[in-house]
Amino acid sequence: MATFIPESLSSRLISHAAAFEPVRRALVAAASDTATVFPAVIARASDPRDTFSIKSGSTAELAGLKVGAFWHNNPARGLPRHNSTILLIDQDCGRIGAVVEAAAANAYRTAAANAVAAQALARPDSRTLAIFGAGNQALYEVGALARILPLTRVHVVARERQKAEGFAKRLKDHGVDLEVSPSSPEEACRAADVIVTATPSRAPLFEAAWVRPGTHVAGMGSDARGKHELPVELHETARLFCDLPSQSVEIGEFQHVRERIESGALVLSPIGAVLEGRCPSRLSPEDITVFDSSGIALQDLYVGQFLLEAAKDAAERGEA
Amino acid sequence: MATFIPESLSSRLISHAAAFEPVRRALVAAASDTATVFPAVIARASDPRDTFSIKSGSTAELAGLKVGAFWHNNPARGLPRHNSTILLIDQDCGRIGAVVEAAAANAYRTAAANAVAAQALARPDSRTLAIFGAGNQALYEVGALARILPLTRVHVVARERQKAEGFAKRLKDHGVDLEVSPSSPEEACRAADVIVTATPSRAPLFEAAWVRPGTHVAGMGSDARGKHELPVELHETARLFCDLPSQSVEIGEFQHVRERIESGALVLSPIGAVLEGRCPSRLSPEDITVFDSSGIALQDLYVGQFLLEAAKDAAERGEA
Repeated sequence: MATFIPESLSSRLISHAAAFEPVRRALVAAASDTATVFPAVIARASDPRDTFSIKSGSTAELAGLKVGAFWHNNPARGLPRHNSTILLIDQDCGRIGAVVEAAAANAYRTAAANAVAAQALARPDSRTLAIFGAGNQALYEVGALARILPLTRVHVVARERQKAEGFAKRLKDHGVDLEVSPSSPEEACRAADVIVTATPSRAPLFEAAWVRPGTHVAGMGSDARGKHELPVELHETARLFCDLPSQSVEIGEFQHVRERIESGALVLSPIGAVLEGRCPSRLSPEDITVFDSSGIALQDLYVGQFLLEAAKDAAERGEA
Repeated sequence: MATFIPESLSSRLISHAAAFEPVRRALVAAASDTATVFPAVIARASDPRDTFSIKSGSTAELAGLKVGAFWHNNPARGLPRHNSTILLIDQDCGRIGAVVEAAAANAYRTAAANAVAAQALARPDSRTLAIFGAGNQALYEVGALARILPLTRVHVVARERQKAEGFAKRLKDHGVDLEVSPSSPEEACRAADVIVTATPSRAPLFEAAWVRPGTHVAGMGSDARGKHELPVELHETARLFCDLPSQSVEIGEFQHVRERIESGALVLSPIGAVLEGRCPSRLSPEDITVFDSSGIALQDLYVGQFLLEAAKDAAERGEA
């Protein structure tokens, strides 16, 4: 019988600190030849405005899938648009061994990929962050980075001024105390040591010329064909990294320079190879580094496994 | 919180009679423009000999997926090789609404597609069945057909004579009382009103010339590239049907005549259109009809929904 971990429990067990190590392990596994990420399925429900995605994978340790859902009318009913359920296969017999509701965990998981990559790629003295997007995911991205970089200031770029202004309070509620300035794209980029995009954009959000030498740039929003956050000119002079090259050139930020990568004109490396020391990180403090996260099922599997174990521990301590 | 229906309950709620109507509705839905079947994922677990598949879809009523598993070493441990779990999405909010373990139900589901098609395509006076394969699925195919055709005799063709000989007893245990004869492929085909293949074969199992006019042929085993049960010559003079044309020419029996179908030289119709009266069935008692079942997620969703409702009914009656 499958273990079921409801959202009410998984949301209590997850945190920025908890998500970091499972995601790091997933990114390392992704850059090994024992891991496989299977083609992602983008599906729609009876109402075609409601969509779900299925991402699956396996590593030497884990196998399973994540069902993500985007329900257009949820906010009107006080529910989050996004839902996420991780299914771990019991590799002893092939049954579904665990069903883990993971809407909150998914936000931490995405942000943890950013943090793991930034720890490897950003200058360790990075103090100023520019964040594009002021939605829920942006909040988590800042929270995850604040744990691993000595950030003091965040420039928030949002289409709606009001949303940018509310970001400081929401960030505080999220447990992160930083100076927050609503900024223009150019202002934010010119000041930033780290630039993070967390939007559903379909056109570049800033100009490559605004990015200072030494900056680390992370594109977190592109996870489907047509999504686009970063200026392609940036990639010509930067060192390029991602979670999974084959997926990144398909649905991630690097879909827009796919031919340049496939021809070898641009070099794209999996961050897992950097984490394992098989591929260099930045070569100098002047390098611009770009990390694209398209989101891979392996991260979900490791986070799901962590939640399963954490739930068992909590149950043993009589807490769940 | 998701409703969880364990195998121990779903296996009690399913039967040939129970599976027929949900599968019929799924096949009708499959031939409508409100239904979508998303690309199937063929995945492998940590041990690459253990594989799982993910099939997803949606109709005007239902959305969800089925995770099928094939675990190579299960029989050595007294477990079935195949497992199957149906996940229904709660379309109110996008969460997983029901997790239905459905290993037994899956065998009934597959066989029900055969029965629904045979009821529409086979001569109603069909008395003699040839079954290729004497495994578990073959048993279910015969059971499902015996409900809707006046069968009196089954010719069993199996690679292992011993398995064919044990089939009569296993069929009786399955509740089906028919005369069973272990037969050669030619003998079986020449005697048959209905020919069913339920094998993992990768080469045709018989010759087209052995098939009598008026015979209905159902290929139930082909569900992946390279699988092959029926002689391609058969398709040249037969009327051709399947569960889902786009999938059948990709992973089903009709992958082997894909070009002839795409060029229009052969006509392949979805059985749902026949069930709805939008497409003729056999035009004369002399027609040979061929039905290919590649297995579609929509069937699983309707069977899952049936099991969910049956479980609620059983719970209300205090039986589950």
